[in-house]
Amino acid sequence: MWHCQAVTARILASSGAPVRQSSVRAHNLALVLRTVANSGNPVSRAATATATGLTRATVSALVDDLIAGGLLSETEPAPRTGAGRPAAGLTLAAGGPAALGLEINVDYLAACVVDLRGTVRHRVVEHADQRPAGAATALAGLARLARDVLAATAPLPVAGAALAVPGLVSANGLVRVAPNLGWHDVDAAALLRDELGLPVTVDNEANLAALSELRAAGTPDFVYVSGEIGIGAGIVLGGALYRGVRGWSGEIGHIPVHPDGPPCRCGARGCLEQYAGQEAILRAAGVRALDQLNPAAAPALDAAGSALGVALAGVVNLLDLDTVVLGGAYGPLLPWLRAGIETELRRRVLTADLAPITLRAAALGSDAAMRGAADSVLRAVQADPAGYLARVPV
Amino acid sequence: MWHCQAVTARILASSGAPVRQSSVRAHNLALVLRTVANSGNPVSRAATATATGLTRATVSALVDDLIAGGLLSETEPAPRTGAGRPAAGLTLAAGGPAALGLEINVDYLAACVVDLRGTVRHRVVEHADQRPAGAATALAGLARLARDVLAATAPLPVAGAALAVPGLVSANGLVRVAPNLGWHDVDAAALLRDELGLPVTVDNEANLAALSELRAAGTPDFVYVSGEIGIGAGIVLGGALYRGVRGWSGEIGHIPVHPDGPPCRCGARGCLEQYAGQEAILRAAGVRALDQLNPAAAPALDAAGSALGVALAGVVNLLDLDTVVLGGAYGPLLPWLRAGIETELRRRVLTADLAPITLRAAALGSDAAMRGAADSVLRAVQADPAGYLARVPV
Repeated sequence: MWHCQAVTARILASSGAPVRQSSVRAHNLALVLRTVANSGNPVSRAATATATGLTRATVSALVDDLIAGGLLSETEPAPRTGAGRPAAGLTLAAGGPAALGLEINVDYLAACVVDLRGTVRHRVVEHADQRPAGAATALAGLARLARDVLAATAPLPVAGAALAVPGLVSANGLVRVAPNLGWHDVDAAALLRDELGLPVTVDNEANLAALSELRAAGTPDFVYVSGEIGIGAGIVLGGALYRGVRGWSGEIGHIPVHPDGPPCRCGARGCLEQYAGQEAILRAAGVRALDQLNPAAAPALDAAGSALGVALAGVVNLLDLDTVVLGGAYGPLLPWLRAGIETELRRRVLTADLAPITLRAAALGSDAAMRGAADSVLRAVQADPAGYLARVPV
Repeated sequence: MWHCQAVTARILASSGAPVRQSSVRAHNLALVLRTVANSGNPVSRAATATATGLTRATVSALVDDLIAGGLLSETEPAPRTGAGRPAAGLTLAAGGPAALGLEINVDYLAACVVDLRGTVRHRVVEHADQRPAGAATALAGLARLARDVLAATAPLPVAGAALAVPGLVSANGLVRVAPNLGWHDVDAAALLRDELGLPVTVDNEANLAALSELRAAGTPDFVYVSGEIGIGAGIVLGGALYRGVRGWSGEIGHIPVHPDGPPCRCGARGCLEQYAGQEAILRAAGVRALDQLNPAAAPALDAAGSALGVALAGVVNLLDLDTVVLGGAYGPLLPWLRAGIETELRRRVLTADLAPITLRAAALGSDAAMRGAADSVLRAVQADPAGYLARVPV
């Protein structure tokens, strides 16, 4: 009904719930931090007070706490020649709490450290088939990679880690099923927490990649399709990730394309993955690597594009989305996939004549899921700086 | 952040926007009306004040306006033997503003009047193929039906009308495309408005039916599938209709089931409608009417169920919904469709082993779209009683 900015105890009390002063402070710390983060340029304490609706004295006390906790830094202003005292500028601290972004996919492990300002400080990707050795070995390998990137960025403090996996993840972080990894009920969060001594959350890789795309590109409604050996989707509606009733949305790889087609690892037949998953394309092309310079792969990529187009036509008919973002391995292959996809969309989307559908490659390329994982940690710090400050000695 | 109940000018002012006393009154009129509507039983002025957080004096002034405008009525309390003065009870007025619910589908026209309490006062359904004569004739026929039900319920005041159509409707009420009716860019709202002298809104029939199902059954997340000659869907997520970017979501009838299958009226091939639309089932069964007592139709219904199951497996894999509601002609046919649908869902939904999917018939049967249309008018009155009162002489 109306958007609030600053919260005072008086207004919080209008909800009828009891109000603690600490919850007012927590809310306003987050408000100040978000205001500085969103300003782009260094912003003065006075401007922060104006933007938040808080008094200058309140803002200054909150800013002092955020500086002491390492979340904000205050730059000296450049000398001004005109009249008036130039203001010092607040920014997110470059040395503030960073995030460890992790990804396990079928044929690679990846880790990166992203600082509070969103800059990638270090990243490592290690290509190897993760299926034969099983979950424990894959997670141990990932922990080793994580320690390497943490060592490379020391002494930068790290607020926590998040892991992207190609599978169904429960709200408590348990990986229920990752069909292409062969995982069932793997408590990846607990294993990594023990190895790294950091809080760890786990989410589906396409969901995290879609969130990073939302942050990078800002389009409020789109389906993000992550093409690896498996195919997943992240659905963003009205600027927010749509997770589904149990958090298991986006299994676009198992949309039936030809219901009587070849058997899929999931137990069904003719799923999209059997036509447009990386291994399916390689089988069809008779080549060892998907490389846009390998002309032998072109007909196989065209067929994969058609299968993607059939599945996406169903998605667009159902959800009336106007933007499809292709990520993972699909990003660089888009020039070879585009004609097949667009032909089917034009043919099969009921509204294709009425409104265009934009098809584009993911802004962050194949790092999207790992970056989305790191982003989720940074967003949690920004949403609750009081919680972060309570955990670290000031 | 917090839920407000009553609004005072002081709190509205915290938004920074200028506040007019009239907007406070409009908000609080709606709040009082909603409180009475949701109470189920007659509710006293004092209880309404407690529930809304408004003062008794304010509530009484608002209630007097709502009674004068014909929206509320106040019953005399039954004599009490104990101490204290028993309170009079407020209810929605049975003679208050009613709604005209209208539906045009491929093979029938329907109209009903639903009173402010949600009781259907009169309904008429007229079966006839609406395709040959075109939009103007169909709308003229519907206007005649509408005048009949209005005459049958006179002198009940009618706040407005809403029309359900099997097609893509723009935000301004223009029917862009209704493939199975052969309509393109039909301004149904304007034509009916002129004929009836009432405000008229237009929406997709599956959307309106899904909203009536939401009201009747209360499940917050489901896909409603309306099976007529065409097949549409209404997608309800988190208790609200998901409309899509342009308002054209739910075209489940054009999800590809067998991409190389028979041609569809939409121009594509192998759409769900070609396997599970009413005419497709009749063709396959070699019978003239879909009747659960006609044993010749059973294999055709089983095949239709399988096609529905294939399409719905894609929907559930994508959206992670746990409830599918079958409406329109599908409701009474569900016993013959169920096995085919459930077999495919079990085989093709990646999470089928982890969580059950409920498949059930629509609560309101084949009236769902027409009732949903009437509901939309009543909801608009309840959301803005001040707007209604301003239009009618008190």
